[in-house]
Amino acid sequence: MNELPNMFPTDDPDWVKDMHADHYLQSWSPQGNRPRVITGAQGSWFWDSDGKRYLDFQSQLVNANLGHQHPKIVQAIKDQADKLCYIGPAMGSDVRSELAALMVDITPSDITSTFFTTGGAAANEMAVRLARHYTGRHKIIARYRSYHGATGGTLSLTGDPRHHLTRADMPGVVRMLDPYLYRLPTGHTDPANCPVAKGGPHLEELLMYEDPNTVAAVILEPVVGTNGIIVPPDGYMQSIRETCSKYGILLIADEVMAGFGRTGKWFAVDHWGVTPDILTSAKGINSGYVPLGTMSVTTEIHDWLRTRALPGGLTYAGHPLACASGVAAIRAMQDEDTLTHATKMGHLLRAELSKLAERHPSVGDIRGLGMFNGIELVKDRTTKEPLVPFAAKGEAAKPMSDMMAFAMNEGLYLSFFSNVIRLTPPLNISEEDLLHGLSILDRTLEIADAAR
Amino acid sequence: MNELPNMFPTDDPDWVKDMHADHYLQSWSPQGNRPRVITGAQGSWFWDSDGKRYLDFQSQLVNANLGHQHPKIVQAIKDQADKLCYIGPAMGSDVRSELAALMVDITPSDITSTFFTTGGAAANEMAVRLARHYTGRHKIIARYRSYHGATGGTLSLTGDPRHHLTRADMPGVVRMLDPYLYRLPTGHTDPANCPVAKGGPHLEELLMYEDPNTVAAVILEPVVGTNGIIVPPDGYMQSIRETCSKYGILLIADEVMAGFGRTGKWFAVDHWGVTPDILTSAKGINSGYVPLGTMSVTTEIHDWLRTRALPGGLTYAGHPLACASGVAAIRAMQDEDTLTHATKMGHLLRAELSKLAERHPSVGDIRGLGMFNGIELVKDRTTKEPLVPFAAKGEAAKPMSDMMAFAMNEGLYLSFFSNVIRLTPPLNISEEDLLHGLSILDRTLEIADAAR
Repeated sequence: MNELPNMFPTDDPDWVKDMHADHYLQSWSPQGNRPRVITGAQGSWFWDSDGKRYLDFQSQLVNANLGHQHPKIVQAIKDQADKLCYIGPAMGSDVRSELAALMVDITPSDITSTFFTTGGAAANEMAVRLARHYTGRHKIIARYRSYHGATGGTLSLTGDPRHHLTRADMPGVVRMLDPYLYRLPTGHTDPANCPVAKGGPHLEELLMYEDPNTVAAVILEPVVGTNGIIVPPDGYMQSIRETCSKYGILLIADEVMAGFGRTGKWFAVDHWGVTPDILTSAKGINSGYVPLGTMSVTTEIHDWLRTRALPGGLTYAGHPLACASGVAAIRAMQDEDTLTHATKMGHLLRAELSKLAERHPSVGDIRGLGMFNGIELVKDRTTKEPLVPFAAKGEAAKPMSDMMAFAMNEGLYLSFFSNVIRLTPPLNISEEDLLHGLSILDRTLEIADAAR
Repeated sequence: MNELPNMFPTDDPDWVKDMHADHYLQSWSPQGNRPRVITGAQGSWFWDSDGKRYLDFQSQLVNANLGHQHPKIVQAIKDQADKLCYIGPAMGSDVRSELAALMVDITPSDITSTFFTTGGAAANEMAVRLARHYTGRHKIIARYRSYHGATGGTLSLTGDPRHHLTRADMPGVVRMLDPYLYRLPTGHTDPANCPVAKGGPHLEELLMYEDPNTVAAVILEPVVGTNGIIVPPDGYMQSIRETCSKYGILLIADEVMAGFGRTGKWFAVDHWGVTPDILTSAKGINSGYVPLGTMSVTTEIHDWLRTRALPGGLTYAGHPLACASGVAAIRAMQDEDTLTHATKMGHLLRAELSKLAERHPSVGDIRGLGMFNGIELVKDRTTKEPLVPFAAKGEAAKPMSDMMAFAMNEGLYLSFFSNVIRLTPPLNISEEDLLHGLSILDRTLEIADAAR
């Protein structure tokens, strides 16, 4: 047996950076990066080894819905660690049953049963496989402006450019266009009334070509996340739901980002009173403190599964430590009336963004729901020419990355995709912190104005 | 906002069972099961709400390598929960860097960089995608007696019957046969010397048909886990390695089950001095206390990635709570000299199984390495007719399921696949507990004898 070093200099930031650069593989990036070393976090803030503090306007990867180190979630993790960290997924467990019961209460009323995964990708994988088994059909309709995960199936479903990385797509994926009102369709006098934006009519046309009897499911983010924070017009989700029901096609709502209060309701579909057949989530369910995802189904699907094996499983399905953190987070959101606060802060945020838009000619569109918001930047408000091209990276994205760097230097953590800045702070951010962040954003947008 | 119930009767086992049956989706099973409710666990034992205790000869799903509730791992989780549960994967983190550094020390010496996932499936997905990018080729060679995960890509790679559930395979998977000495090839005078069992010659033949320039990687479990605990003959892994190197094909070792001391060494490949290009793990890395997996690569691949983006990422990549538990588990294995103990207990286990074989005519083969062991049951030792057919379920598997039920009733937790009972106790099980479990197994095998 090799002798391991007894101690590493883990409190030396340079050592942490060296190890990160040389021995840790970082997501979606070239390697060798010497990162900021984050030494702590609380609420809407985190800080680095230089003592510099950052206001987290991203909730990290849109997961820290209750901010950092929420005391009730931390305590629940510690209590469950003392009690039982892990037991196999076939065993009964109090905390697993409790989270399953809470999910019944907060999901739309026909949805009554949940498979617990370690994140959104595994949840979407399970959803798609189950839909194929349930319907006996193989095609899945997914949208272009979408991200569903980085596993073989979910990256094939993903429409954003990361999808090109699969090199061996899962067969059967069909693309649907997005209800992207700001740009769709070019020149249409009433974009909200065009077939794509209405939902059902666009889907009907695709089904005419594809044959509905070959389509197992439509998967979509009810509010698009990474790919631009696109909120559908009222009626869109209802229309998609009706068309799916008409042809026996399952509707899968990917609420990995949109769920758990991000839009001001438990789930985004609640804004339109739509019940999907399958609803997936992760991230906000426990603010990401322990890896956890969900795939929830209707009673009808659950009953169908009483005589048929679920076509999937995971070592960490229903993980007790993860379930305990989920229970604590949901209880905290209830006790602290987080959804009401998120709704209120969302209104304030968009009202303030409207004021910024008056001052900054680069602001083309402001959109969002609750604490799920985006600013789309343009070179010209009339032509709507994007400030940077679709999915721009490197030099082409320079105005955007310059803004991120400027804001970070000012102590504000932001993110972007293409020409859209995403604003997704913790749901429980204080009004004071929200306004502080917006004041930095105000100065940040001068970079966009100058880059037009 | 809906009002949630303030309290659920979570200490009532009947309530826990009801919720499990009606609102929790259980892996790979028909739903509606009212399970045993597990209320606690310590070391090699767990117990249910009736106070009945079970000796865990499975380590749950072959993950609890250090048994249940190891105090050092529990403490590390609690300490990290207090400090920082989560920070995004691009940030520097002491514990993330520490685990990355420890992985350098325990993996084969050319392997120096690790991507941290939430489990084995995501690790294998990343490995296969990276291999395709690195080589510019698309085919992946995988074996029949294999399990690599339940996501789109990994279930396509999996050879066991769960693979039939994908309904839309990832393209490019080619099958290789297994070095299954007990049955391969039928009637061969020296099975260990046949092309399949020697490794390279069998692979060479496949490559002749497939064209090596189209093959990105070979993925295999160095010791097959779920599909029958198959240990390759000495020379097999070296031969596969040589053939891969000859054609620029990457060798991916899936050590999700075999890794972290399960075979008595840190990794199974260590038994043969073989360095894969990519090594994946999960489970034993932290005994499953927090979802965690790894994909580790050679310096050569890491350097290639310095100028190219890693083609994947995860919200929970390098999760601090998970990394802290991994650090603690590896340190504990070192401090407690777990590998030496596992090796010793493995020898004792197989010696005792040999004695059982003398008494039980149903025992056809005993095999294993360290604490990774299997008993293959037959109707007849000469013809080697399996006690139940390949992948038998339900009535066809009755002798096997009867044995599991008998053992469970006697307080011993076992598992099987086809006609093989798997014996994978915690690595730190005491000699006394090991012998106690074997005494129950002795009586259990009478069921197999009678079913011949």
